[in-house]
Amino acid sequence: MNPIMSRSEAADLVVAARTRLGLSWSEIAEEVGAPLVWTTAALLGQHPMTAEQAERACRLLTLDESVAESLQRQPARGPDPALAADPTIYRFTEALAVYGPALKELIHEEFGDGIMSAINFRVGFSRVPDPEGDRVVVTFDGKFLDYRW
Amino acid sequence: MNPIMSRSEAADLVVAARTRLGLSWSEIAEEVGAPLVWTTAALLGQHPMTAEQAERACRLLTLDESVAESLQRQPARGPDPALAADPTIYRFTEALAVYGPALKELIHEEFGDGIMSAINFRVGFSRVPDPEGDRVVVTFDGKFLDYRW
Amino acid sequence: MNPIMSRSEAADLVVAARTRLGLSWSEIAEEVGAPLVWTTAALLGQHPMTAEQAERACRLLTLDESVAESLQRQPARGPDPALAADPTIYRFTEALAVYGPALKELIHEEFGDGIMSAINFRVGFSRVPDPEGDRVVVTFDGKFLDYRW
Amino acid sequence: MNPIMSRSEAADLVVAARTRLGLSWSEIAEEVGAPLVWTTAALLGQHPMTAEQAERACRLLTLDESVAESLQRQPARGPDPALAADPTIYRFTEALAVYGPALKELIHEEFGDGIMSAINFRVGFSRVPDPEGDRVVVTFDGKFLDYRW
Amino acid sequence: MNPIMSRSEAADLVVAARTRLGLSWSEIAEEVGAPLVWTTAALLGQHPMTAEQAERACRLLTLDESVAESLQRQPARGPDPALAADPTIYRFTEALAVYGPALKELIHEEFGDGIMSAINFRVGFSRVPDPEGDRVVVTFDGKFLDYRW
Amino acid sequence: MNPIMSRSEAADLVVAARTRLGLSWSEIAEEVGAPLVWTTAALLGQHPMTAEQAERACRLLTLDESVAESLQRQPARGPDPALAADPTIYRFTEALAVYGPALKELIHEEFGDGIMSAINFRVGFSRVPDPEGDRVVVTFDGKFLDYRW
Amino acid sequence: MNPIMSRSEAADLVVAARTRLGLSWSEIAEEVGAPLVWTTAALLGQHPMTAEQAERACRLLTLDESVAESLQRQPARGPDPALAADPTIYRFTEALAVYGPALKELIHEEFGDGIMSAINFRVGFSRVPDPEGDRVVVTFDGKFLDYRW
Amino acid sequence: MNPIMSRSEAADLVVAARTRLGLSWSEIAEEVGAPLVWTTAALLGQHPMTAEQAERACRLLTLDESVAESLQRQPARGPDPALAADPTIYRFTEALAVYGPALKELIHEEFGDGIMSAINFRVGFSRVPDPEGDRVVVTFDGKFLDYRW
Amino acid sequence: MNPIMSRSEAADLVVAARTRLGLSWSEIAEEVGAPLVWTTAALLGQHPMTAEQAERACRLLTLDESVAESLQRQPARGPDPALAADPTIYRFTEALAVYGPALKELIHEEFGDGIMSAINFRVGFSRVPDPEGDRVVVTFDGKFLDYRW
Amino acid sequence: MNPIMSRSEAADLVVAARTRLGLSWSEIAEEVGAPLVWTTAALLGQHPMTAEQAERACRLLTLDESVAESLQRQPARGPDPALAADPTIYRFTEALAVYGPALKELIHEEFGDGIMSAINFRVGFSRVPDPEGDRVVVTFDGKFLDYRW
Repeated sequence: MNPIMSRSEAADLVVAARTRLGLSWSEIAEEVGAPLVWTTAALLGQHPMTAEQAERACRLLTLDESVAESLQRQPARGPDPALAADPTIYRFTEALAVYGPALKELIHEEFGDGIMSAINFRVGFSRVPDPEGDRVVVTFDGKFLDYRW
Repeated sequence: MNPIMSRSEAADLVVAARTRLGLSWSEIAEEVGAPLVWTTAALLGQHPMTAEQAERACRLLTLDESVAESLQRQPARGPDPALAADPTIYRFTEALAVYGPALKELIHEEFGDGIMSAINFRVGFSRVPDPEGDRVVVTFDGKFLDYRW
Repeated sequence: MNPIMSRSEAADLVVAARTRLGLSWSEIAEEVGAPLVWTTAALLGQHPMTAEQAERACRLLTLDESVAESLQRQPARGPDPALAADPTIYRFTEALAVYGPALKELIHEEFGDGIMSAINFRVGFSRVPDPEGDRVVVTFDGKFLDYRW
Repeated sequence: MNPIMSRSEAADLVVAARTRLGLSWSEIAEEVGAPLVWTTAALLGQHPMTAEQAERACRLLTLDESVAESLQRQPARGPDPALAADPTIYRFTEALAVYGPALKELIHEEFGDGIMSAINFRVGFSRVPDPEGDRVVVTFDGKFLDYRW
Repeated sequence: MNPIMSRSEAADLVVAARTRLGLSWSEIAEEVGAPLVWTTAALLGQHPMTAEQAERACRLLTLDESVAESLQRQPARGPDPALAADPTIYRFTEALAVYGPALKELIHEEFGDGIMSAINFRVGFSRVPDPEGDRVVVTFDGKFLDYRW
Repeated sequence: MNPIMSRSEAADLVVAARTRLGLSWSEIAEEVGAPLVWTTAALLGQHPMTAEQAERACRLLTLDESVAESLQRQPARGPDPALAADPTIYRFTEALAVYGPALKELIHEEFGDGIMSAINFRVGFSRVPDPEGDRVVVTFDGKFLDYRW
Repeated sequence: MNPIMSRSEAADLVVAARTRLGLSWSEIAEEVGAPLVWTTAALLGQHPMTAEQAERACRLLTLDESVAESLQRQPARGPDPALAADPTIYRFTEALAVYGPALKELIHEEFGDGIMSAINFRVGFSRVPDPEGDRVVVTFDGKFLDYRW
Repeated sequence: MNPIMSRSEAADLVVAARTRLGLSWSEIAEEVGAPLVWTTAALLGQHPMTAEQAERACRLLTLDESVAESLQRQPARGPDPALAADPTIYRFTEALAVYGPALKELIHEEFGDGIMSAINFRVGFSRVPDPEGDRVVVTFDGKFLDYRW
Repeated sequence: MNPIMSRSEAADLVVAARTRLGLSWSEIAEEVGAPLVWTTAALLGQHPMTAEQAERACRLLTLDESVAESLQRQPARGPDPALAADPTIYRFTEALAVYGPALKELIHEEFGDGIMSAINFRVGFSRVPDPEGDRVVVTFDGKFLDYRW
Repeated sequence: MNPIMSRSEAADLVVAARTRLGLSWSEIAEEVGAPLVWTTAALLGQHPMTAEQAERACRLLTLDESVAESLQRQPARGPDPALAADPTIYRFTEALAVYGPALKELIHEEFGDGIMSAINFRVGFSRVPDPEGDRVVVTFDGKFLDYRW
């Protein structure tokens, strides 16, 4: 009568296996057949996987059925308090503090009253070579939703 | 012996003038000669402008010298508490909660130990037509900085 | 060079005029030509009105042009801290604490992974007679949005 | 001399069993003989069940007596911090921020000084088909209580 | 086009007038024709008064019509942050920390699952002589409400 | 070299035994020879018991010596965060928000500058029959202490 | 119909006058006829003064009647958030963090279950010469109060 | 490869042994050869002990070498959140809220700009007999440190 | 009977005058005859100045006597909430999060149990040329204080 | 299928081994071949080590492979809540509160709009003899980064 494995326990096992086996997130995403950022987020516990996705990931990572079951569970999404001040993540938070009000102005000017959906939404990640130092380029791409009664 | 006008008072005057005159942020950015998101953020109080930028903006917006002086002041950057729960901005915060840990994993895998700079950094904003509803596309583009002693 | 009137100053003037003139929110909504809860929320500062809506409301409430201009401004939406513990509002918060996790389970079971939109969304309010005491009935009605890349 | 199983441990076992057995919340509610949202909330730990309700639920879910005992315990109700930022639940919180003050105005106008009870209270959940996308409809229905000395 | 006087401004004027005129809260309550604690709370901004109550209070306190109007407004109830650590009030908070869980146990044992209403509710205040030092006796008296669907 | 059992572990065992044996808090208080609310609070971990009180309680509840020892320990008193939003307890918190400032005014008017002691203090609990629904009546009764140098 | 001057406005005027006139807190306390720390705390807004004390203080400080009236008002006591991190005050907070649990153990061992009163309480302040640097000596002296029903 | 015992685990074992053996904090302090409050604080985890002090304490309390090693570790000092609202400790916090600003004024008047050290610092504890009830007297005695570049 | 000008109002006037007159902080420090970082901090409201220092600063900045008086007042020191997330200051906070525990270890290893004084303390600031980009070098230099009873 | 050892478990084992073996942080840093503060921070869990660094450290400290693996993991950096009020670390926080705004002014005056990098950054630690008491000298040395689009 054991409860199923938690999403964060599954994520720890995924990260440990990935390191041990020397697999990249891209290789896992390719095996899973889903976009890179989506797959990484799902394996870290932010999206439920289909049975097939979970089994493909676990086979590649040599993890057992209890992990595959966990990966299919509907997660409680949200920020990880242990990462709130991590510098790699904090720089995004800081950018949002500095540019968020400008983005709000521009969204309303261009689209009217509404939001960029965070559900009908995708995130891109890429490395862009630059002679002064390569760049991290992250794209937030969401459907505009207008306030509509 | 009056203190100079605060950055947020200047921002309120800019927003009011823009609405009254029916000017778009793009028209202002073009006049200022700087990128769209940067100009919007600067006028909202997140970047100091050069004397020339401030004067060009104020001339277009028919604002006086005290505003132009204020726009050149070094700001105290940071989040606006009154906007923390605004849905248009909150969706970015939520996206960061869901995808931030994945971005951290991908940055470290691709670049090693370090961060995407939020200083040597630019933000793009565009509207992408889509038959299922046009999309808001925002690009964060920062130089990778590695931990280096 | 005055900044335009803030949304909360406009809301205070609306509430004062409504009381002074003995107008109901329904009468105002009818004049504005919009749903009851939407109109009330808009006049309290949570939605921008069109020029026509704002002018109709201000004519009825005998408020001047500066209020009408303010009502058309894009607001910064969010909770009012002064109302967080108000018992009339707190009971909704409490109901959400008690029934929120159940609603999440039921949404995912019925619709799959996604959310009830709070943007493509409407709220109904009615009084339902009941011999043991009339009832407040509030309906939240939002489009289901699935997580979709 | 073991203490009885906690309500949240029981909830985890219920959720795990439900998934394993492929039972819907409606099927469980029918077996328990109680409304859908009430039953779901009770099994997640927000209401005590009668002995009969608990035993029926546990028989269906093939859970043992210690779970049935736990489900009868008086719970400490309240929000689950792990769900505060979950998007599915947060949209309700956001709707309350945007429309809560309007609901307060309308309750006082219609009923006088008082509240919608969250105790003499029921919640409805339904899926409403819509050609532009089906809708989540949640009804909060509570007895009006007036401030009365 | 002035907004009406806030409830807390009215409360300040009441307290100042009461002190200046040397009136006791009991004398004011008698004039208003309402219970002592209710009247004190109402004049401090926690209950709306009827027109007659407000006018009687203002006549006695020699306050003008703008105060009387304010006292009839529906308040936003809630704690006053400036009093959170005031020792006179904090002792009640402390008593609740120490005895609250016991009261919850006793309410559930005696009445079943439910609450003491804070709306259908009255508060008594009295001084009880005692040779070892007179005692403050405060009575909370609320209707029991059971969780009822 | 085991540390003694914590007060909250002892409280859990007391609650479990009370339920299993079908004993009321009154029966336990009678056996302990102490007031009802005091005994309930003490067994929940908010007062140290004498050796005799602890042994009587444990004999009745068929709990062993390690519980009796724990019940004699000096506790760290304070609020239980897991109960802060529990509706049964929250209604007391809300009543304090609404009536606390009035009680402060009345204490100072009647007694002068000082407080109701929460140490030389007792709490009464009773059920008062009422044709419109029985009432929970809780009495806070503390010695007045004046600020005295 | 002005409200009376706030306690903190009165405190600011006292501090300004004291500096302007070059008076020490001891000289003021002597004139008021009350202990040094009590008088300083009272003038800073933490104790109400008698009419005579307030008038003596105001005559010495050449402050007018509105200040004297304010000093007699019952204050809302509590910490000043602007001083929470002030190093001179923070060192006391830190000492309490380090030695508070030890003081609790010693109070209970010596006196039994109870507290040091902060109401029947006095504070001493003195400078003690020391060849290695003079010392600040502050004495907290409160009546022991035992938990007594 | 076990990590050494934590300071708080050692403190729990000390408190349990002290109670079991019926030893007073004074007897332990005498054996350790250090002041009463210092010794109590050290054994509760706020100061590192020398090897000799730790061994003497452990021999008296019949605790083994792992406790003695732990007592020598450099602690992370700070407040115990579980004690923040404990009434015995809270009264000191309250006294600091009421008298802290006065102490700051008096320190600066007497000594100039600087602080009472909390490092070159000692705390005294004593019981002072008083016909109206014995008193807890606690002395904070720290070297004055002036701001000095 | 005006209260003297607040320290933060004085700071605003200093900053405005400095900008208007094109004076550097070094030039002001030289005129004041005090170290650069100390002088900047003092003028921003974190240290009291002597009468001579304040007058020299105000003469150079063409500010009047009320500013000079304010600069001599004992400040309430502490962090400015408006700067908590400012990137220029936040980088120091982040560095402390990453390296603070290491500095604690090294201080205790090198000096024993104690602290770096923040009172007998000075801060250096300099620009160090570097071919890969000039560097900001900030030195914290405080007397070691050992825990000493 | 064990997850790898957490960074904080590894840190505890490092600290325990260092104490047991009597090794200084300098000796460990020398063996690792990296700067003192960097090595200490890395072993406490704030930097990933290379395989060679981790193995050298573990060999010296006689710790096994699981620790060496953990030390190579990418950490989640951030403050340790248990150390927030530790006096040794708090003095740095306090210094930042007092001198942070001055450092911001000086950085902008000297370098323009930008920050001291906390990534391209090093920290120095040294003991400086002084007849009035030796001094702790900590140097923060980071590359200046200007806001650059």
